[in-house]
Amino acid sequence: MANHNSSRHTIILLQNSPSRATRTFMDYDSIGQAMDGICGLYERKLKEINPSLRNISYDIADLYNFIDGLADLSALVYDHSISAYLPYDRQWIKQKAFHHLKRIANGGR
Amino acid sequence: MANHNSSRHTIILLQNSPSRATRTFMDYDSIGQAMDGICGLYERKLKEINPSLRNISYDIADLYNFIDGLADLSALVYDHSISAYLPYDRQWIKQKAFHHLKRIANGGR
Repeated sequence: MANHNSSRHTIILLQNSPSRATRTFMDYDSIGQAMDGICGLYERKLKEINPSLRNISYDIADLYNFIDGLADLSALVYDHSISAYLPYDRQWIKQKAFHHLKRIANGGR
Repeated sequence: MANHNSSRHTIILLQNSPSRATRTFMDYDSIGQAMDGICGLYERKLKEINPSLRNISYDIADLYNFIDGLADLSALVYDHSISAYLPYDRQWIKQKAFHHLKRIANGGR
């Protein structure tokens, strides 16, 4: 049976600042890839702030601050059993990101 | 019993051009308001093209062309019975827009 997180189409809705013009969305084939995507957003932001930085390192608290700093962030995860997308909030995303980073730190993919 | 279309939170996912940077989303309290929103997008575009135009008029075929010209357009409509969002494609949106405009033309709201 496919791992709970694999192959569940995941849409991330994101609003960077109070201006609705900054609203955008990204979509991924799984929750794990969506968490990679959110970490990737943060890493790109770190590179923008420190272009000379060669190795980027940060801890979960830094990632949480980034997530909390966004005007809006939510996820919609496809559930095959109901052929619909379940909505999840920022808090859920932070938990998933934490477990995702922990799994990567322990060498899991 | 509330009308089928009223008070169903509706998210419109939109990508204007092949560049993913043009991805954005809008959300509305009902399907009807979402259709108003899509018509509003088209009317703003017409005003951009013809700033001097005072009265904007268009028929459904024009609106369809606008919708077909978008790189991507889909809707997610909240279904209270499953607490999840049902996904709908461009074709569904065109049908809903048609019925919406017909209702307005007949003086309905």
